[in-house]
Amino acid sequence: MSTRIRLARNLAQFPFPGWAKKTQKEEVLGRCLEVAARIPKIKDPTGLRIDELSELERQILFERHLISRELSNEPEGAGVIISKDQACSIMINEEDHLRIQVIKNGLNFKRSWNFITQIDSLLEESLDYAYSKELGYLTACPTNVGTGLRASAMLHLPGLVISGQMEKVVRAVNQLGIAVRGIFGEGSDASGSFFQISNQQTLGESETDILKRLNSVMTTIIEREEDAREKILEEDVDKVFDEIGRAYGVLKNGHLLSSSEAMNRLSLIRLAIDIGAIEEQNRMLVDRLFIECQPGHVQFTANKEIEPNQRDVLRALYMRDAFAKLPEPSFEHITR
Amino acid sequence: MSTRIRLARNLAQFPFPGWAKKTQKEEVLGRCLEVAARIPKIKDPTGLRIDELSELERQILFERHLISRELSNEPEGAGVIISKDQACSIMINEEDHLRIQVIKNGLNFKRSWNFITQIDSLLEESLDYAYSKELGYLTACPTNVGTGLRASAMLHLPGLVISGQMEKVVRAVNQLGIAVRGIFGEGSDASGSFFQISNQQTLGESETDILKRLNSVMTTIIEREEDAREKILEEDVDKVFDEIGRAYGVLKNGHLLSSSEAMNRLSLIRLAIDIGAIEEQNRMLVDRLFIECQPGHVQFTANKEIEPNQRDVLRALYMRDAFAKLPEPSFEHITR
Repeated sequence: MSTRIRLARNLAQFPFPGWAKKTQKEEVLGRCLEVAARIPKIKDPTGLRIDELSELERQILFERHLISRELSNEPEGAGVIISKDQACSIMINEEDHLRIQVIKNGLNFKRSWNFITQIDSLLEESLDYAYSKELGYLTACPTNVGTGLRASAMLHLPGLVISGQMEKVVRAVNQLGIAVRGIFGEGSDASGSFFQISNQQTLGESETDILKRLNSVMTTIIEREEDAREKILEEDVDKVFDEIGRAYGVLKNGHLLSSSEAMNRLSLIRLAIDIGAIEEQNRMLVDRLFIECQPGHVQFTANKEIEPNQRDVLRALYMRDAFAKLPEPSFEHITR
Repeated sequence: MSTRIRLARNLAQFPFPGWAKKTQKEEVLGRCLEVAARIPKIKDPTGLRIDELSELERQILFERHLISRELSNEPEGAGVIISKDQACSIMINEEDHLRIQVIKNGLNFKRSWNFITQIDSLLEESLDYAYSKELGYLTACPTNVGTGLRASAMLHLPGLVISGQMEKVVRAVNQLGIAVRGIFGEGSDASGSFFQISNQQTLGESETDILKRLNSVMTTIIEREEDAREKILEEDVDKVFDEIGRAYGVLKNGHLLSSSEAMNRLSLIRLAIDIGAIEEQNRMLVDRLFIECQPGHVQFTANKEIEPNQRDVLRALYMRDAFAKLPEPSFEHITR
């Protein structure tokens, strides 16, 4: 679905955010906001102080993967710069002074890397990075020292989940030093059969080697997913059609919908698009709904903070409206 | 939904079916088929020998409540006479020589009683019933001695089920000597929130007293059901709308449907009609689907015997077709 690269960077003259005083963090924040605003590669950037955002605004940024839960929870001296197209965001005073992030649609480490490395170089022209000739970039947590790079792809793997193979895949890629997480990173569950797959090591390997290795693992996982889909469509086609049909029926007609159920049902609608049961032109709508079914977005749409139970009512209403325009899945032309 | 009265009768010159030899049963069967065929009150009757029916045909008659499971399982000398409109059926050599049954739509013990008592009298003109001045009609099982009458009504009680009051109601009516059973009588479960409510005693009370008492209990249960519906619509309206919406969505879009799930989902569609969320004109279709979702009817429609899993596929297909014509539930005009 999407590729993400982030770089952890710190300024040499300041203690890491976890050890810094408020005034030091403020100085870092001011300096970074100012420098980033001048970089032409970041199109129409908006600089935000986290402590000036409401709970709901922070939640929205989190659900769009533009800030982390940690940044949202520790607003002192924290900020973020976001490009207008939301493809690039730079968190300030999260665990490190700078967390530069680039998100691109599809599986494309190369393009993401080319983009982020340009931004990184432009920032470095004005900022004095903490760097050791021996270790590379220095970071607050030793697991990021070296390249400071974490690259991940969000993969939609319903075939592996339905066929019960996901655990085996996770074990196999873990042995290659690659982590598998849920849609919102560490500690989150795999709602909707979405998985974030990322490198664990940042030291002892060049950036391009890390990305190459990650890319080849992704390719293998995608092949396994395709095999799994083919197999369940051969062996258990009625079950797959049934689950897709029910997902469509419930999203179109339900009146109470938790965000986790919405994700899981939408996941099946996405699978329906992949196998041609729902027309390709609806993919963008469905991918948008994954974001819009999150708690913050439901409240944002309602234009107020609301109780969880009432959120489920509004989420269901939103889905019913969206699905009124989405034609029923049709399986006739799919070979059994 | 419907009212049913049955009378247990036996011929004085023959042992009860459980004790009779094959030749004796055959004699009873022949005699009863002949007599019943001549009664004008039973319109266009068909007389059937159970041993000449296929498994599937027996299953169909059972699902339509025209014969009992017992009659279907013990075909020796067993038969049934069915009027063309299926409102009257007479089982021969079930537990008793004759089990006369009348089914009418709606709650109407009086009309059912007037009808069955005429048939009973006409049969008695040609058959010598086993009767004791002291005890009344003699039957194979002592629980039927006296009037030989069992009257029942099929009630649809989703409100009491959803609000968890059904157990309390069952306990209360049991104390009045009235039994509550599932849709297929003794030992069956309450699929679709349907309950058969019937008298337990047949001795020491006249037929009209039994029916009067039963009628007053039914009226009370129906009032309780209406209260329960009003209450859940007040207190938990989103949950009710959600369950109805999901039922509609799954019946319209599912690809695997067990008969028990179909019954329970259809029950909610029937509730939707009751509360005005689906137009009244669809009631007949929905009531018909309750019968047509049964295993025998699914096979009958497919015109062959089929494996249970394949039945679920065909049942779902049948429902999708039926629901394609049924408009979506609409809740807007229902007061919250």
